[in-house]
Order: sequence, then C-alpha cells, then structure tokens
Amino acid sequence: MTTRLRRAEIIAVGSELLGIDRTDTNSLFITAGLQELGVEVVAKAVVGDAFDDLAAVFRDALARSDLVVLTGGLGPTDDDLTRNAVAHVVGRPLQEDAATVERIRERFVRRGMTMPDINRRQALVIDGAELVANAQGTAPAQWFDADGRLVLLLPGPPREMRPLFERLAREIIAPRTAGDRIIRRTLRLAGRTESQADQMLQPLYARWAATEPPIVATILAAGGTIELLLHVRAGRPALGEALLEDAARDVAAIFGSDLVSLEGERLEAVVGALLRSHGLRAALAESCTGGLVTSRLTDVAGSSDYVERGVIAYSNRAKVELLDVPEGIIADHGAVSEPVASAMARGIRARARVEVGVGVTGIAGPGGGSAAKPVGTVVIAVDGPDSRHDVRTFLFAGGRELVKLFASTTALDRLRRVLLTL
Amino acid sequence: MTTRLRRAEIIAVGSELLGIDRTDTNSLFITAGLQELGVEVVAKAVVGDAFDDLAAVFRDALARSDLVVLTGGLGPTDDDLTRNAVAHVVGRPLQEDAATVERIRERFVRRGMTMPDINRRQALVIDGAELVANAQGTAPAQWFDADGRLVLLLPGPPREMRPLFERLAREIIAPRTAGDRIIRRTLRLAGRTESQADQMLQPLYARWAATEPPIVATILAAGGTIELLLHVRAGRPALGEALLEDAARDVAAIFGSDLVSLEGERLEAVVGALLRSHGLRAALAESCTGGLVTSRLTDVAGSSDYVERGVIAYSNRAKVELLDVPEGIIADHGAVSEPVASAMARGIRARARVEVGVGVTGIAGPGGGSAAKPVGTVVIAVDGPDSRHDVRTFLFAGGRELVKLFASTTALDRLRRVLLTL
Repeated sequence: MTTRLRRAEIIAVGSELLGIDRTDTNSLFITAGLQELGVEVVAKAVVGDAFDDLAAVFRDALARSDLVVLTGGLGPTDDDLTRNAVAHVVGRPLQEDAATVERIRERFVRRGMTMPDINRRQALVIDGAELVANAQGTAPAQWFDADGRLVLLLPGPPREMRPLFERLAREIIAPRTAGDRIIRRTLRLAGRTESQADQMLQPLYARWAATEPPIVATILAAGGTIELLLHVRAGRPALGEALLEDAARDVAAIFGSDLVSLEGERLEAVVGALLRSHGLRAALAESCTGGLVTSRLTDVAGSSDYVERGVIAYSNRAKVELLDVPEGIIADHGAVSEPVASAMARGIRARARVEVGVGVTGIAGPGGGSAAKPVGTVVIAVDGPDSRHDVRTFLFAGGRELVKLFASTTALDRLRRVLLTL
Repeated sequence: MTTRLRRAEIIAVGSELLGIDRTDTNSLFITAGLQELGVEVVAKAVVGDAFDDLAAVFRDALARSDLVVLTGGLGPTDDDLTRNAVAHVVGRPLQEDAATVERIRERFVRRGMTMPDINRRQALVIDGAELVANAQGTAPAQWFDADGRLVLLLPGPPREMRPLFERLAREIIAPRTAGDRIIRRTLRLAGRTESQADQMLQPLYARWAATEPPIVATILAAGGTIELLLHVRAGRPALGEALLEDAARDVAAIFGSDLVSLEGERLEAVVGALLRSHGLRAALAESCTGGLVTSRLTDVAGSSDYVERGVIAYSNRAKVELLDVPEGIIADHGAVSEPVASAMARGIRARARVEVGVGVTGIAGPGGGSAAKPVGTVVIAVDGPDSRHDVRTFLFAGGRELVKLFASTTALDRLRRVLLTL
C-alpha cells in the first residue's frame, strides 16, 4: 500500500512532443482529474524516446513525488521504451502476459488482420504490476506500487489514455488520497500594476498563510488586468469554499472598484453584464485600437443586445465626418488629446442615440510619436448618462500590438468604472 | 568555457503553468531557436513556484544536459524563486546589481511612478553571472557557466523572453555549437483545408524526402490560414537555403493564388503591402466580426496610410445610417445575405470616398441561427476599383470566437484576392 497521495508528477514520453509542432495536452486532462482528488501536480516533464533520458527523468520524479503518471511510449515499435525504462529504474523484470497477447491478437483478427510479431512487446508487464485492458487500442495500462509510491503507465493517444486514466483515478488513486480536495478561485483586478497589487496584498498573504488550512495565492499579469489565483486544500469542500469566500471579501475591501470580478470573469463579460443590468446600450469610437475594443466587447455572446455600433475613425476626416469632432479641436490640441477623445465619445453617443459612448485615440507606434506625446500615449474618454464624463491620458509600454491590447483593456475598464457609478 | 553544446533542457517556472488554464509556450519558441543552431532539446519540464521542487528539477537537468534554459520566476514577488533556487544549486551567492536597480527605477520614473521596494529583488544577480538588460520589462536575463554547462535565466512573459533569448542564442549559444545549422522557411496558404493542402502536397513530399540533405515538411492550421513549415539541416547554410528556395517555387506552382506568402508573412501584412503598392485606401464595414478585421489590418505598422476607417454596424439601424444599406434589402433578404454584404461594402467605400470597401455580415452565435442560415454563416463582400466586386457566403464551424477568427481571416483573404487581380 502506498502512502496517502499528495504530490504527483506527470511525464509525457515522445520525441514528437519535444519539437515545435506538437505539445503535450494529456497532462492537462490528468491534472484536472488529480486536482479534483486533491492531489497536487508539482512538476511535469516531456522527454523523448531515448532510454537513458527517460530513465533519468522517471528516476528523479519518483524520488520527489508520491505518484508518477507516464503517458506514451507504450506502442509496439523500437522507440517505445517506457515499459523498459520504468522496469529498469525500479529493478524489476518484464514478463510477457499471455492473456494480453491473446487480447491483442483478437483485436487484429476482428479487423481481418494478423497481429504483427512486434505487437507482442505491448504485452510485456513490469513484474508486480496490474494491467488494465485498453478498449480503444492495443497497449494496456499498467500500475504498481514501488516503495510506497504509485506509478501509472498510460498509452499516449488521448482517446486511449482518457478512459484508462479515469478508471485508475476512480479505482486506484481516489482510495489512496487523504480525502482532501483542492478548491480554487480566481479574482480579477484592473488599474494596478502587478507589483502594486502584490504590495497591497502583503497583509492578506500573511493572514492567508495562517488560516487552517492555509490559502495559497498566485498573482499573474494578464493583458492589462491582474489575476489573483487562490487555492486551498481542504478535507471538507465547504470549509475551503468558505475560506475563499472570506478571502475574496478581504480582497474586495482592499481593492474597491479595482476589483473586476470575484470568479475570474473576463473584463468584457463584466462590462457587458453591467450594461445589460442597467439597460444601457453602448457605441464606441476607436482610433489607435483599430476596432479591438469593440471586437473584445462583442466576443461575449449576446452582446448585440447592448453594443449598438462602433466606428474606427483612423483618419482625421473620419473623426470629423462620423463623430462630429470639430476640426478646430483637432487643429488646436492634436488628434491625440483629451478634448478630441471627449468629442469622440460624445459624438458617437449622440450619433448612435445610445446612453454610453467611448472614445479612444492614441499613438500605437512604432511611428508617430513625439517628445510631448511619445509612442504609447493613449487618451480614453467615456461619456454616459447623468452627465457622467471621464477622460484620462495613459502611457503604455511595449510594441504596437501590446499598446493596442493595454489600451483596449483600459478602455473597457474605464467604461466599467463609469457604469459602477450609476 | 563550456563544452560544445549538443543537449539542452528547458524549464518553465510558475505554478500557473501546472494548472489546466495555461500551458508553457515559451519552450516552443526556445526549441525553434535551439534547433536552428543544431542543439537538441532532450527534455523539458514545468515546475511550480516552490523552492525545493524548482531546485530539484534544475539540479537534475543540469546533471544531464549541456545547456539549461529556465524561463519565469524572475518577477519581484515572494513567489519568484528562480534566482534563489539556481544560486542555491550551484552554490553561489546572490548580489544586488546597482546599475540594474537604477535601470528599473528609471523605468518606473518614465511612467510617472515610484519603484516599489520589492522590485529591488529583480536586480539580484547570481555570483559570476552576466546580465542582459530587458528592454520590455524590469527583470534582466542572466547567464553563466557552471562546470562546463551553460545556464540561462530568462523572464517568463513571452514578449520579454523572446528578444532576450534571440540575443543570447546569437551571442552566447551559437559560438558554442558544433556547426550544423537548421535552415527554416515558412509558407502560408489560404482558401484550402489542411487535408486538401496535404493531399496536393503529396508529390512534393516525395521529392523533398529524396533531396540531399532531405527537406522536412510540417503542415499546421493557423487561424484560418495554413502554415507549411519546411526545414533542412545543412553544414553549409547556402545549400539549405537553395533547397528551400526550390521547394518554395514548387509550392507556388501548385497553389497559385492560394499561396499567401513565401516567408511566413501574416495575411494582414500581405494585404497591407498590396494596398500600399497599388496606392489604394480601404474602409471596412463589419457586423459579426465586431471590428476584428479592421483591428487585425491595423496591427501592421504604418497601416494608417491605407486604412481610412472602419464601421462596426452591429444593429440594422447602424447599417442603414452609416452605410446606406437600403432598409428594403434588409427586409427582403435578411441582415445576413449577399445583397446586404454587397451594399455594406459599396456603402462604406462611397461614404469614406476610398478605392476599396469590405463588408462582413454573419451569425457568430451561439444564438441567432436558423435552419436556412445556421450559426457560422458569414457573408463577405469586397468592392474595389475597375468594377471589381466579389461576394461569397461561408459556413464556419466552432464557437463564437472561432467563427469571428475564421471570418476575419477569410475577409482579409478575399480582399487579398481582389487586390491580386488589379
């Protein structure tokens, strides 16, 4: 019997997974299953079809973790080495399983074929391992205990791996967990840098580390917003959820309107929900973002209910013709200026006859910057009901696409903040 | 000095990369760069923000390989531990680099902010390591030799990591490799499915396998276009380049106008170059794509020269008011129809007084579909000079964002094909 399983590593085997065209996706499926059972994946690896490397990577994982899951390398050919490398590391012989040979032979016969002799290799079992027949393919799964550690060998093709993993998770892994579950929650913030947010969170980190069980936090910059990922390992899911609910409330108290969402909802979905709940429609006037703000807002299903139109006024002429921006304002202040952004927001709102207008103008680069208005300067205006009007100038770092991304995120966030005041 | 570099491992650091929402993509970029230099990636790993695990994974990799590249965990917060874990494993102290502190401080000052104290952590250098300044962010890269092995520490955000890796590949890795180079070329196709393209390429695959050295081809679907990746390993780069030039010419002969670019240029850049070379300006009228077509076209630097405006006519009212689409056409044919798409393209072209107009209307879903016009139905029209007019109905599979992506790619491709006839 193994110890209670807490820490897992996943090893994907196959040289094709070390190139640039394919990636290991099996580990995501396995991770999701392990998370549900409260088993934490502490590392994962990809290794090619090379005996020494595979043996070394497996040996290292086995030394660190309670559970090692290997996928791939169980095929019939010379470069399918997982069985051999694992057997070598744990010092056990491989033996041909007669029933498995028969099962593989029958599988070929059912398809009107003769089993090639190399497929016998798929019936080699690590001494002491249990086999689980593979309904989708020829290679069975194998599992065994080694010095209190649990080792699973699964085939690589996802349609074969998935049902086998699900069965082993249910029958072999679940009974050996501590009964703990990992509960997760993601909060989204805007209007702060990652390090500002991190500093503001310091007192909460200390408090979270002291809860029983402790709350683990990870902070991530995500395209102009910040994701705060919280998780807790709890024997009773309700306890974990209550702890995370308290934590979310603490974050909300510190961040106020900088808190975008309590369940990780994307900014565009939050803005959409606010527009919908207030029964408001929006129209957008974009210049440097080139339509990206409207495109993101319309990524949300049902957004045609509250997005009336957008105008991408790339040229000054378009700003005058489509948005009624007075030519004099452009001449006096330049196209990238607070008066122009405000006029764009007011113009689109009036033209579209909707309740909320947004104006974005800026310099995405790489050309067009000046000392006074460097590349990355973006002005965002929101014009709403009850005389709400917000206009502000930002300076974003990065290349053209990054400036567009940050500008679009910030435009959605400014719109969100105006809607919050209604 | 290190030994000749042959075997590399890549370690991506970050607990978020061990969940189910994100995956390590940095290793693909790094792998491509190493392949070009003839350095084989023998394993890669993902490890969380946990000191002991990170140290163990790094120690094991260092024992196996000539080159270890770590990405991530160089941020300013408590859970950024790469510097510390690597220093611990190689038994060297960390020291604060005054010039780097100053550089980080100035970066904050330029954005009108004060450097938070925790950012000093990003200036900690492993004793004996060289620093490479990060133009896109605060954390510099570090590299050092350890007992004949080369170790690189790179920041995690791809836009920061990529230029730093490229520089280190050129200046530090390339001089230490054995001499063979992998020469690559990417061709881009549109208007064909991946399997159609694959079938058309069969005769070329056979020819490429027989060249000396052989040309290796990989075909990849990429957001509505197809990338054909060719590479060859050659001692003399000129030989490899000549082989790939012949191969590209063969592909062009088979695919004609379905060939978008011979050097992997993106569709939006190809369309932009065609507009520029013909001295034409474009205006775009979008409905279901919500601004995505215009946003992609304006991702290209200098696009303000040829993109005059865009209109996102989400509502029927906007189609009438902004694009002069006759209400009767909408009533007779529906908003998603060839007559409406054509009227949108003609309307935006006339209103903007430019040479080329594009109209896109469709049903992105999940709602709004019918038996006659299911979700994914998209109509694209291009109206150009010399009475060029192209209108066509497409049916795209997938969810809302995928339909938007395919529709925007196809709109850019239809525009490209009209421009090719001029």
